[in-house]
Amino acid sequence: MNALSYRDQLDTPCLVVDLDLLRRNIEEMSTYARSRGLALRPHLKTHKTAEIAALQQQAGAVGFTCAKLGEVEALADTGVLDDVLVAYQIVGAPKIGRLLSLLDRVRLTVAVDSIAVAEPLSQAVATAGRQLDVVIEIDTGLGRAGVAPGEPALRLAREVVQMPGLRLRGLMTHEGHAGRAATREEMEEIARRAGEAMVTTANLLRRSGIPIEVVSVGSTPAAFATTQVEGITEMRPGTYVFYDAAAFRFGRIGPDRVALRVLTTVISRPAPNRAIIDAGSKTLTTDPPPPGRNGFGYLIDYPDATIVRLNEEHGIVEFPPGSPVPAVGDRLEIIPNHVCPVVNLQDELFVVQHGQFLTTWRVVARGKVR
Amino acid sequence: MNALSYRDQLDTPCLVVDLDLLRRNIEEMSTYARSRGLALRPHLKTHKTAEIAALQQQAGAVGFTCAKLGEVEALADTGVLDDVLVAYQIVGAPKIGRLLSLLDRVRLTVAVDSIAVAEPLSQAVATAGRQLDVVIEIDTGLGRAGVAPGEPALRLAREVVQMPGLRLRGLMTHEGHAGRAATREEMEEIARRAGEAMVTTANLLRRSGIPIEVVSVGSTPAAFATTQVEGITEMRPGTYVFYDAAAFRFGRIGPDRVALRVLTTVISRPAPNRAIIDAGSKTLTTDPPPPGRNGFGYLIDYPDATIVRLNEEHGIVEFPPGSPVPAVGDRLEIIPNHVCPVVNLQDELFVVQHGQFLTTWRVVARGKVR
Repeated sequence: MNALSYRDQLDTPCLVVDLDLLRRNIEEMSTYARSRGLALRPHLKTHKTAEIAALQQQAGAVGFTCAKLGEVEALADTGVLDDVLVAYQIVGAPKIGRLLSLLDRVRLTVAVDSIAVAEPLSQAVATAGRQLDVVIEIDTGLGRAGVAPGEPALRLAREVVQMPGLRLRGLMTHEGHAGRAATREEMEEIARRAGEAMVTTANLLRRSGIPIEVVSVGSTPAAFATTQVEGITEMRPGTYVFYDAAAFRFGRIGPDRVALRVLTTVISRPAPNRAIIDAGSKTLTTDPPPPGRNGFGYLIDYPDATIVRLNEEHGIVEFPPGSPVPAVGDRLEIIPNHVCPVVNLQDELFVVQHGQFLTTWRVVARGKVR
Repeated sequence: MNALSYRDQLDTPCLVVDLDLLRRNIEEMSTYARSRGLALRPHLKTHKTAEIAALQQQAGAVGFTCAKLGEVEALADTGVLDDVLVAYQIVGAPKIGRLLSLLDRVRLTVAVDSIAVAEPLSQAVATAGRQLDVVIEIDTGLGRAGVAPGEPALRLAREVVQMPGLRLRGLMTHEGHAGRAATREEMEEIARRAGEAMVTTANLLRRSGIPIEVVSVGSTPAAFATTQVEGITEMRPGTYVFYDAAAFRFGRIGPDRVALRVLTTVISRPAPNRAIIDAGSKTLTTDPPPPGRNGFGYLIDYPDATIVRLNEEHGIVEFPPGSPVPAVGDRLEIIPNHVCPVVNLQDELFVVQHGQFLTTWRVVARGKVR
C-alpha cells in the first residue's frame, strides 16, 4: 500500500517544495559558477530559509546576499550566515546601530551609491573604531538605485576611499532590467552590456589607483548571460533555487524544473467553466504575469486554464469551454508568477520528495523588511 | 521641548496607525449601523488585530467576520472573539476537523454555496452530535463564489434544511463588485440591486416556509448604499477601520480620514526627479491603483509624485519636473492602494497619537490563510 500523497495530506493553501528539484537547481548553478571561476553569493530574499541556505553552502556558495538587515539578523541567529553582502543602502541611525552590532557576528559588506549614504556610515564606523567593507552600487540600466558607470562611479569611489572606517572592495549591480526583455537574444544583449559596463568601470577605477577586488552581478534571468563577460568575479542569483512562471519565458527551463508550487483546493464551482480556489492575493500576490502569459499563476494540472482574478482569499479560475474542470474538494498546484513575495507570505515551506510529505522548514526571515 | 515625533523615531518601513482616526472611523460605522437598526459584524481580514477588534466590540459590533479558520483560531486565542461568521466555504477533512474544535470555543456560523460543500459539513457535525449554523452565500454579481439569487438559492436552501446537524440562519453576500463601479451613482445602483436581490430571495425562502433570520451584506465601498434597502439585517464592512487609496474615489472621504500609513525612508536619489524608498512590493504589495489613480500608493507629503514601480524592497518614485524632491534620509508617508494585504505582511502595527508613538499592536492573524 502506498503512503498518502502530500496532495491529499496537506491542508491548503500551502507552499510545497520538491526536494529533488530544489537540489538540482542549486547544483546546476553551483556547477556553472565553478566552471566559470565565479564566486556564487546567492540572494536569500527568495527563500529566507536556513535549510536552503545550508544546501547552497554545501554546494559551494562563498557567502550570501540580503536586502534588509532584518534578513541578516534572522539568518545569523540560525548560525548559517558567516559572510553577507547587504545589497542595499543602509540609511538612518537605527539601522546603522544594528549594522554595527552585526559586525561582531558576520563578515559584512554593504552597498553605497552616494556620499549621502556613505558619509554617515563612515562616521559611525570610525567613531566605533571599526572597519566596514563597502561596494559601490552601479546602475547598469535598471533605473533604480546606483550611481552611473564610468566617471560618476569613479568620482564617488575617490570620495569613499578617503572616508575613515570604510574599505572599498569593489562594485556591484543588479541587472534586473535584462529579465524584462522581449526575447532571449535581447535579454542576452542587455546582460552583456551591463557586464561590460561593470568591467569597464572596474578597470577605470584600477587605472586611477583604486584597487577593485569584486565585480559582482545579480539576477536569475540573466545569470548565464552577464557572467559570460570576462572580468566579472561574482554572481548573486536568487530565484534559481525554485524558479517561477517568469522563468519560462526565455525557454531555458519549463514547469518541470520549478521546485516550489502553491497547493490549493477548489472550494466552489459556481458556473460550468469557473472554479474558485482557496489561494487568493494573500497567497499568490497580485504580481502580474510575465509578458506573453495571462493570469496570476500557472496551473500545472490545467495549463489552459487562467487565474483571471484574485481577491484576498479567493482565486477565480476560468477553463476553456469543453475542457475538464475540477470539482469541489479537488487539489491543484500552481506555479507563482513571482516566487519571492509568495514565500514571504508564509511561515513555513512543506518539503516533499517522491510525492510524499517529508518535513517543514521555517521561513525564518519572512517579513523582515526593516 | 517636544517629544520626538514618531516619524523620526520609528525604523522603516513600518505601518503607522493613528489612534484618533481609527476610533473616528470605528465610531462612524457603528453609529450608522445603530441608526439603521443593523447588526454590525466587521470583517477581521483588514486588521487581524485583537486590540482593534476590541475597539469595534466596545463600539457595538455584535460579532465578527473571518475568511479563514486560522484567523478565527488566532483571534479566539486572544479571547476577543465570541461570535463569528466564517464567510467562506469550509472544504476538506482537516478544515472540518478544526471547525468542530472551534464549536467549543466560539459561536460559529459558516457559509455554504453548494450541496458539495454542505453535505460533508452535515455528515461531520451530525456524526459528532453537534449543530452548526450556516448561511447560504448568494452571488449578487461579484462572480466569485455563491449561488444565484432566487430559485437556485431556494433549491439549495430546501436541501440544506433537510441536512442533519445544519441550522440555516439566513443569507449572505459580498457585493464587492460595487466598489469597481466607474462613478458613485453607478456604485449606489449596483449596491441597491444587490441588496434588493438579497431581500427578494429572503422573502422567496420565507414564503416557502424556510425561516430567514439573517440577511447579511458586506463591502466597505458600498456600506452606506446596500444597507439602504429595507430588509437587510446585517453589515460586514472591513476596510473602514483604516480606509485606503481605493476609498477616495467615491468622494465620501479623503486622505485626512485614512488611519493607516506606510512610513518609509528615502535611501537613494539617483536622478533629479527620482527617489528610491525602502518600501517595495514586500511592504506595499503590487495591488493596482483604483481607477483614476496611478502608482502603488498615495504619497501624503507629495501628492503629485507617483510610485511608478516596485521591486521587492525598493519603491521607485518620480516627481514632476521642478517640484520639490525629498533627500536621502527623509521620511515619507504612503496611503496604500489596498490596505488589507499590506497589513497581512507585517507582524505589528505602530500606534501613534498627536504625532507621538504610543505602542505596538501585534497582527495576530497575519498570514493565517488556512
